[in-house]
Amino acid sequence: MELLQKTIANIKPLDEEAVAAAKARLDDLVKPIGSLGRLEALAAQISGIKGQVKNELKKKAIIVMSADNGIVEEGVAAAPQSVTLIMTKHFMKGVTGMAVLAKEAGADITVVDIGVNGDTTGFPGVLQKKIAYGTANFAKGPAMSREDAVKAMEIGIEVTEDLIAKGYDFIGTGEMGIGNTSSSSCVLVSLSDVDLDIAVGKGAGLTGEAHELKKSVLKKALELNQPDKNDPIDVVAKVGGFDIAGLTGVFLACAAHRVPVVVDGFISAAAALVAYRLQPLSREYMIPSHSSAEPGFLAMMEQIKMQPILNLDMRLGEGSGCPLAFHVLDGAMAVMNNMATFAEATVSNETLVDIRE
Amino acid sequence: MELLQKTIANIKPLDEEAVAAAKARLDDLVKPIGSLGRLEALAAQISGIKGQVKNELKKKAIIVMSADNGIVEEGVAAAPQSVTLIMTKHFMKGVTGMAVLAKEAGADITVVDIGVNGDTTGFPGVLQKKIAYGTANFAKGPAMSREDAVKAMEIGIEVTEDLIAKGYDFIGTGEMGIGNTSSSSCVLVSLSDVDLDIAVGKGAGLTGEAHELKKSVLKKALELNQPDKNDPIDVVAKVGGFDIAGLTGVFLACAAHRVPVVVDGFISAAAALVAYRLQPLSREYMIPSHSSAEPGFLAMMEQIKMQPILNLDMRLGEGSGCPLAFHVLDGAMAVMNNMATFAEATVSNETLVDIRE
Repeated sequence: MELLQKTIANIKPLDEEAVAAAKARLDDLVKPIGSLGRLEALAAQISGIKGQVKNELKKKAIIVMSADNGIVEEGVAAAPQSVTLIMTKHFMKGVTGMAVLAKEAGADITVVDIGVNGDTTGFPGVLQKKIAYGTANFAKGPAMSREDAVKAMEIGIEVTEDLIAKGYDFIGTGEMGIGNTSSSSCVLVSLSDVDLDIAVGKGAGLTGEAHELKKSVLKKALELNQPDKNDPIDVVAKVGGFDIAGLTGVFLACAAHRVPVVVDGFISAAAALVAYRLQPLSREYMIPSHSSAEPGFLAMMEQIKMQPILNLDMRLGEGSGCPLAFHVLDGAMAVMNNMATFAEATVSNETLVDIRE
Repeated sequence: MELLQKTIANIKPLDEEAVAAAKARLDDLVKPIGSLGRLEALAAQISGIKGQVKNELKKKAIIVMSADNGIVEEGVAAAPQSVTLIMTKHFMKGVTGMAVLAKEAGADITVVDIGVNGDTTGFPGVLQKKIAYGTANFAKGPAMSREDAVKAMEIGIEVTEDLIAKGYDFIGTGEMGIGNTSSSSCVLVSLSDVDLDIAVGKGAGLTGEAHELKKSVLKKALELNQPDKNDPIDVVAKVGGFDIAGLTGVFLACAAHRVPVVVDGFISAAAALVAYRLQPLSREYMIPSHSSAEPGFLAMMEQIKMQPILNLDMRLGEGSGCPLAFHVLDGAMAVMNNMATFAEATVSNETLVDIRE
């Protein structure tokens, strides 16, 4: 609990002076004011995070939290639970969707077994941080104890701090866990006024009947657990998952250490929402990626007051949108660092024509 | 006219066999079917363009058509006309928004003076293809002759064919020309049932009053010129611009030579619409980039039946969204080339668990 509290306490606002200087420079660049839209806003955000106008984000990593969910006993997921274990192995082989996209973008991957229902000790490169062999079935009681929720968040913090100590300056968030759209939907409903019908999607591919079953199971589970909407840790413990708790820690640690972090997909966004509720300032360090095809995703984004930058109808998870967001941010850094201002672009024998309106 | 006709005649459908094989492979990859959304659709489109399942897009260039528009005499643009000349110079200095983003993405730039109102002969690297020192003011008569519209399209074809001959296999489209949102809006209105009020935006930054003036000027210009909605060349000649005509040629040449080409921003999309109307199959070779903040942009996209992949509120033009689209396509290629199929990922001592539902 100490590490979690310390981390939350260390989260400070953006450096407003750096943001103002960044905006002034952006307005001075050879383009109409604001014409690079959100690319400018993202560049200014990074300036505020790092405390200086020009920045480079050189060393990128995606943290993947793998964990199983006891709720799958209720038939809420399309794929069998064993897929979590198998995919956790495949990440480090570099053959999954996220893994190939990360490689293309020059990003490294850190996979964390924070609660896989199976043995990952033989998998090269998978961090061994297992709390349990999956959460308990939250249709029958809380998914985990409050202590384990805090422990999972602190694992997320530690893993992130290790990466930051190694020089990583841009973090992405991913997950693998059959059943984790169920926990994410319940976290959303518990922490907002969003209706269960909107919050619960078809996950990675449920039929109409199975979708109705999922909604009915989750409705009952929420009634049974009665998570406290004003206590995000209680919500995660009762209806969340180890992956969501771990990623919550990642978001908090990035904010505390002033490192930008990508929110990617429905489960990651659930963790971002928990982090945001624990410390609203953590949001200032988050970068959105793609718009998920999960119907509850946009409702989640609204809760965090965030708009996705990519529109690709992806619903794979894993953190697969992070590498694409990394590229967009590289572009935003290039704008800030390499575009000329009107003064810089004008040589002595030219008339300065200001196109800023 | 011969080159234009020949190019249009050479545009063939996608290789349906390659598309089918690509889709079969995508469905076999270690992920739920369709879960990488439009990244999969883009990968399959490239397979259909190139006639083989796996592809790499290695050599990228953005073609920037620079031209002036006589219509600016009517006060429809926020910036003075001289900005076209100045920015045309700055592109090759590598300090504009598009130029720094292109460099970051490893893409080259080809700037074409197809009608700048000023002398660009001293600008290193600017292709000298000037048809005239800007179009005529189409509030008083046609912007250009039909012959010049065809000539501009053929310049676009020739420039593109030169790049393809040099090994470029992925082309982006950009433009510079004060007043070219006016011509683009008029092209949209002339080729569709879209209302002028929707089609006419504030360009790079008009005030409310100037915006009303712009709409009133363009309404009268359309009434005066009476472009023939069934004759896209007539539309470009009467209310278009040299940049739009040149980019139309770029789209047609890319389609004829089976090279993917990025549609980027409002003016590029106007050219894409003209190409689409000249030969509907040309659309199969187009890749959308970002959603422009111009209100007519989405109406334009609807006409071409295309959805942007990036959501960044950019309105700079220049082709500044192309480098970001290039990155997304690199990701799509990585998915197709480097993800494992279930068969490839399964070793003999593992049970194959199919997560495709």
